[in-house]
Amino acid sequence: MTALRIALDVMGGDAAPPAMLEGAVRALEKGLAAERVLLVGDEKIIRDGLAALGCQAAFGVLHASQTIGMGESPSQALRAKPDSSIAKCVGAVREKHAGALVSMGNTGAVVGASTLLLGTLEGVRRPGIAVTLELSGHPVTLLDMGANIAPKPEHLLQYAEMGAIFMRDCFKVAAPRVGLLNIGEESSKGTDLLKDAHALLAEAAELDFAGNIEGGDVFANKADVVVTDGFTGNVVLKLLEGFSGFMLELVLSELDAHGVKWSAHAVRNVKKHIDYAEYGGALLLGVQGTVIVGHGRSDAGAVANALAFAARAMDARVNDHIVAGLAGGKLAQSPPSK
Amino acid sequence: MTALRIALDVMGGDAAPPAMLEGAVRALEKGLAAERVLLVGDEKIIRDGLAALGCQAAFGVLHASQTIGMGESPSQALRAKPDSSIAKCVGAVREKHAGALVSMGNTGAVVGASTLLLGTLEGVRRPGIAVTLELSGHPVTLLDMGANIAPKPEHLLQYAEMGAIFMRDCFKVAAPRVGLLNIGEESSKGTDLLKDAHALLAEAAELDFAGNIEGGDVFANKADVVVTDGFTGNVVLKLLEGFSGFMLELVLSELDAHGVKWSAHAVRNVKKHIDYAEYGGALLLGVQGTVIVGHGRSDAGAVANALAFAARAMDARVNDHIVAGLAGGKLAQSPPSK
Repeated sequence: MTALRIALDVMGGDAAPPAMLEGAVRALEKGLAAERVLLVGDEKIIRDGLAALGCQAAFGVLHASQTIGMGESPSQALRAKPDSSIAKCVGAVREKHAGALVSMGNTGAVVGASTLLLGTLEGVRRPGIAVTLELSGHPVTLLDMGANIAPKPEHLLQYAEMGAIFMRDCFKVAAPRVGLLNIGEESSKGTDLLKDAHALLAEAAELDFAGNIEGGDVFANKADVVVTDGFTGNVVLKLLEGFSGFMLELVLSELDAHGVKWSAHAVRNVKKHIDYAEYGGALLLGVQGTVIVGHGRSDAGAVANALAFAARAMDARVNDHIVAGLAGGKLAQSPPSK
Repeated sequence: MTALRIALDVMGGDAAPPAMLEGAVRALEKGLAAERVLLVGDEKIIRDGLAALGCQAAFGVLHASQTIGMGESPSQALRAKPDSSIAKCVGAVREKHAGALVSMGNTGAVVGASTLLLGTLEGVRRPGIAVTLELSGHPVTLLDMGANIAPKPEHLLQYAEMGAIFMRDCFKVAAPRVGLLNIGEESSKGTDLLKDAHALLAEAAELDFAGNIEGGDVFANKADVVVTDGFTGNVVLKLLEGFSGFMLELVLSELDAHGVKWSAHAVRNVKKHIDYAEYGGALLLGVQGTVIVGHGRSDAGAVANALAFAARAMDARVNDHIVAGLAGGKLAQSPPSK
């Protein structure tokens, strides 16, 4: 049972600790058992916070005396604060007291500690950060969003394979189409990295390779998995975030100028499509454990989503299937999820 | 006078030739003299088209017997069609019968022919494609948007310098702030290219270097010029186009579902911010001549904007100032625009 637990970093994120605790409580309403959640952070704050919420659920609690701030240098903070909630979460997964961790805290620290301390899955060369967006009525997973900013072509091939397994296991896409983010459709387009990666992807019989896709095609339902290097991915992700906020503001002010009042419900419906809080966060694919790192400004709803998402990825045995898939070179050979 | 003319590719673009001719006529309303416009394409089509518009203006006309299609391979088409309207436009600039060209046709062919046949400005290592977007109430110029997908750090420095001169000359920004698109603010962030470019930009006393800026900061008025490699730039540009269309559709359908009717005027106001047709197109900076290549789906309004924009760049002597600026290494030393 403990191996199926999810360690939640109660201290990380702009709205921590209250939003984290409230998120844990709300995850129970989504069907998650309290026994599966291990709350990691200052024990007194956790106990008091739960009491304030009137919550008696049987959450596990793991004390951590230190907290890494959002703005701290990841490497320095990890060295200086061995008893931080982030380090304790990663430690819990490493020691198999939990199978997953969820943190809305310092992204660099979570990714850094996880990559360093958990080790990669058998056969995985480099972990990648996967983000799933609900665009044009269907989920699209983009990776890598910043773990590996100067990848080799083989890394991109593995991202394609890991992303496809993830989409199949967690989103029930039977044969995920994989696109390679590039500046043109022809195989001759792009940098040397992209040309070499295109050749590798085209040869990979186990993949449904949709070829190169351009920036705008991300919204055109041409692929279920979009593979890119971590530099481009990170720029793209932040651009989408900035742009969606900018567009929403623009639209709202324009409506306002025309005396049109827009309901909060309608705004939420639009936001849902462009907000990766819908799935609670980004998934670090390729490490031994399920690691979800959410946005610093996550609210209780996003935390609950992230916990549910972590449970889904664990229960679907995404990591086992990645190991089997990479070993066999055949996605089809990996065991079906139960 | 001829050196100040603008060659307009009448045959290129989805709505060519009619939208091109109508655009030329509409540019007259913006104060452009007909003598400054050289219409390039099938002479009979041009004469008939102008007659249909009831236009008697004294446009120049240059016959071209061939047309390069939007989907044709640029290099093959340029070889096979030496008398294409694109080749004739570039030829007119090369022979100093015009100082600028505007085409809404095959981007690869326009950029390829211009780069190859016009030659670069003195001191310029590699031309770059600059796109100006009207975001958060002020123009931001991004470059390179795809001319140079694997640049060296020195190329990025020159893009910064050219972009700053362009913003100063054409948009009256006295001291343009230059940002380097990266995945974090610290100078240690990003690929080797970005780290080296950061060092060069920080040393360039003639630049107002705003440091690294992240994807979302493009909308946050942190820089007037955003420098990036052509691969990332091209992905970003197409992503913004795709995303803005997607967002607008999402918003409109959500409004519709709530029974709210939105005026065409309000939609246009929103689009204006995210549409680079506002300035008529992208500018190929660094070649001998003013080259504007617009979106294939440009309408007459975008064509008129592009012609006005070409006149503005020429009259402001952007290219002279780039040569002087690169020679002196001091933007301040370049002669003030009249």
